[in-house]
Amino acid sequence: MSRRLVVIGGSDAGISAGLRAREVDPTAEVTVVVADAYPNFSICGIPYLVSGDVQPWQSLAHRSHTDLEAAGLTLRVDTRATAIDVAGQQITVTGPEGAPEQLDYDELVVGTGAVPAVPRMTGLGGPNGLGPDDGVHLLHTIDDTHALLAGLTGRTVHSVLIVGAGYIGVEMAEAFVARGIATTVAQRPAEVLPTVDAALGALVRSELEGHGVEVLTGTGVTGLARTANARIAVSGDGLDRTFDLVLVVTRVRPDVQLLVDAGARTGAGGAVLVDETMATGLPHVWAAGDCVVTHHRLMGVTYLPLGTTAHKQGRVAGANAVGGHARFAGSVGTQVVKVFDLVVARTGLLEHEARTAGFRPVTTQSRPDDHKAYYPGARPLTVRVTADADTGRLLGAQLVGRLGSEVAKRADVFATALFHAMTVEGLADLDLAYTPPLGSPWDAVQLAAQAWSSEHRPPARAARSAALA
Amino acid sequence: MSRRLVVIGGSDAGISAGLRAREVDPTAEVTVVVADAYPNFSICGIPYLVSGDVQPWQSLAHRSHTDLEAAGLTLRVDTRATAIDVAGQQITVTGPEGAPEQLDYDELVVGTGAVPAVPRMTGLGGPNGLGPDDGVHLLHTIDDTHALLAGLTGRTVHSVLIVGAGYIGVEMAEAFVARGIATTVAQRPAEVLPTVDAALGALVRSELEGHGVEVLTGTGVTGLARTANARIAVSGDGLDRTFDLVLVVTRVRPDVQLLVDAGARTGAGGAVLVDETMATGLPHVWAAGDCVVTHHRLMGVTYLPLGTTAHKQGRVAGANAVGGHARFAGSVGTQVVKVFDLVVARTGLLEHEARTAGFRPVTTQSRPDDHKAYYPGARPLTVRVTADADTGRLLGAQLVGRLGSEVAKRADVFATALFHAMTVEGLADLDLAYTPPLGSPWDAVQLAAQAWSSEHRPPARAARSAALA
Repeated sequence: MSRRLVVIGGSDAGISAGLRAREVDPTAEVTVVVADAYPNFSICGIPYLVSGDVQPWQSLAHRSHTDLEAAGLTLRVDTRATAIDVAGQQITVTGPEGAPEQLDYDELVVGTGAVPAVPRMTGLGGPNGLGPDDGVHLLHTIDDTHALLAGLTGRTVHSVLIVGAGYIGVEMAEAFVARGIATTVAQRPAEVLPTVDAALGALVRSELEGHGVEVLTGTGVTGLARTANARIAVSGDGLDRTFDLVLVVTRVRPDVQLLVDAGARTGAGGAVLVDETMATGLPHVWAAGDCVVTHHRLMGVTYLPLGTTAHKQGRVAGANAVGGHARFAGSVGTQVVKVFDLVVARTGLLEHEARTAGFRPVTTQSRPDDHKAYYPGARPLTVRVTADADTGRLLGAQLVGRLGSEVAKRADVFATALFHAMTVEGLADLDLAYTPPLGSPWDAVQLAAQAWSSEHRPPARAARSAALA
Repeated sequence: MSRRLVVIGGSDAGISAGLRAREVDPTAEVTVVVADAYPNFSICGIPYLVSGDVQPWQSLAHRSHTDLEAAGLTLRVDTRATAIDVAGQQITVTGPEGAPEQLDYDELVVGTGAVPAVPRMTGLGGPNGLGPDDGVHLLHTIDDTHALLAGLTGRTVHSVLIVGAGYIGVEMAEAFVARGIATTVAQRPAEVLPTVDAALGALVRSELEGHGVEVLTGTGVTGLARTANARIAVSGDGLDRTFDLVLVVTRVRPDVQLLVDAGARTGAGGAVLVDETMATGLPHVWAAGDCVVTHHRLMGVTYLPLGTTAHKQGRVAGANAVGGHARFAGSVGTQVVKVFDLVVARTGLLEHEARTAGFRPVTTQSRPDDHKAYYPGARPLTVRVTADADTGRLLGAQLVGRLGSEVAKRADVFATALFHAMTVEGLADLDLAYTPPLGSPWDAVQLAAQAWSSEHRPPARAARSAALA
């Protein structure tokens, strides 16, 4: 008899699990329970829908409903899973008709994802909190996106405040500017994009400001209120302004209720604990994506929700649920964002993360060109290399450069080096591509590594130490 | 007493050796003997000088004479080394004044490079062969470049024939087109750029033809002759035409005479044998760059002259010559070329090379997008992944895509994976950067790897095999 696999969640982790299960066992009966009507949508693409770059909104689907069914997945859309009966191997779901129903499973994969961690401020959250009808938006789902687009077209919006200057905040700033809206970004931390060091965040701030975005840092927003003329009054640290629309895009938290109710344990960041096979410890229950902890090759078990990781974890969960023997090899935390004409990427650890993980990190910033200076159009990259002072082990790299400077894939060279636990000095051994219009005989990756070595491992000193030893 | 290091050769290997020696031992006295007047010039940049992209020609120097002397190198330009006395630890040089002179050394690094392997054809080579004054050019040195530029400006050049469609041939085609010259490329092999598979070479041919270059393949040029009206009559396979200028850019051969005369042994490609420390076996004599064999991580000892390799080998030789303990970690054969708006890269082995090296290679070609299709401007990459059918070990990758598609650094991700002897399936574990404008949740590198796996390692079959085992 064929195996019945039920997947809860129609985003990256869930769909990856379902598809991989069908690849590994084409006889598996795979049912995917999708809370909304949008299975397999690219949440990362929402800013480009708002900017107008992507049209129509349906093109944000990685695969269409038809594609997914052709791959052997049975989709139950607009259906919420409300309970898992681990012993009975069934889940309770409520579909669009509203009547609870039981679904039996042999194996279950849970990919419930994350939900916005709504920051504490008056006027947001709770029964009387402001919402889309008032011009106050969150942005995590396709439904949120439709509400935002309706808000932008259904009323006159001249000014927007974005609360939060992380990835989505800066991407949305670009999107609003593309729509010709006066855009302000506010956040409590001292520099934008706190996922990179402040020296690089400052470059992002300049890029935002250069495109007319008002950037307010050190500015916590503490309250929202509706004004008489249907605008939003915003109060905060030195802030007392009104805007036509407010978008709150701050952190997310794992959506773990269903698994916790079923007896799963949680760990880092409140996420569900899984091992590298994506097993939850509950019999026949696997989990993947933004609702679970992240095995990190440098930090051990942490919480680092990313789409790329969700895809990988989902693939592992799906394979194992149908009898495979896959393991999640671990994240190195690689991330990239485009901000107007700038690309910002990082992989590995920042210094404070590295210290927490028990390393002795030191960092060197350098500005190698993206290609030979004599060839037209050469532009510097700003690269920060972090490595262990004692062992020379590469711990992380952060890069900022212009679009077209191959910043993202240079980050990937660092990421691949991190994956293999290379030393900074070892990067010099990599055989990287060179032609004058696209690189240097020592690629920018290697020049940045050599800058670290020059500062922290001067060869003459090393030679003298060796001679003295 | 400080160590006297003499370096023969002022190009990538020699200069890298000298600079690294000074880093490792700042007391070393380093003298670099440079045959021409152009130490540390970027030979790879010559096509961009001819195209007009680079001006003035002096900017092709990686470092100026002054920079090099500030780094502690004593330069002897326009000086040829004519003999090495290994036992006496001295070399004979002839400087601009013409009188032979002896230079004593404690350690010697030889980086004599390569010279064009002039193909056999009537009218080329020998005492009566045609040369720059006749409009027939080779292109390997800065002097060659000056002669070519003089030829292009000193006479009316409407048409050029390039003999050879390797990297320099296709780059020079672009350069001549940029100068408004009718350009023909001819070569004996059946497809241009034989360093990649013909399926990709065909894309390069289309790009050339799309920019007005006439491409003649399967067309060996067998003779050159001067015509009455100072043009060049070219004969060959089905070829009987005249051109205003002919550029012959075919293979190179290692320039080993000096070392062979001193007793060095040669190996692959006629290049001087060295070990991974760049030792020649002759006492106190090291060698690096295009004149020596290449240790290749997949092929063992071969001959693969590349600027990137010369830099690395030079650095190793320079360090070891002053008491360091460096080893050349080995090439994986990474190469990239820009051809108009196309970028062509490869790393690792082609199938025939892999078979020679004892592998059982199979290749899958796929066309992943450079970034999410919904974001404007997505363009497919053509990727060929070669791996061992038995072990799944990655053996090579070839990529063709448009400028701006991060082709070069995607090749570098493959190169880094090859360096670490990863399997194709292991590539799925890499944590690569993703944002919709620049990539996909599974990067194109991983999608190409998955295409290989789908063809050669279908998971369902693997699972069945495992079940049967």
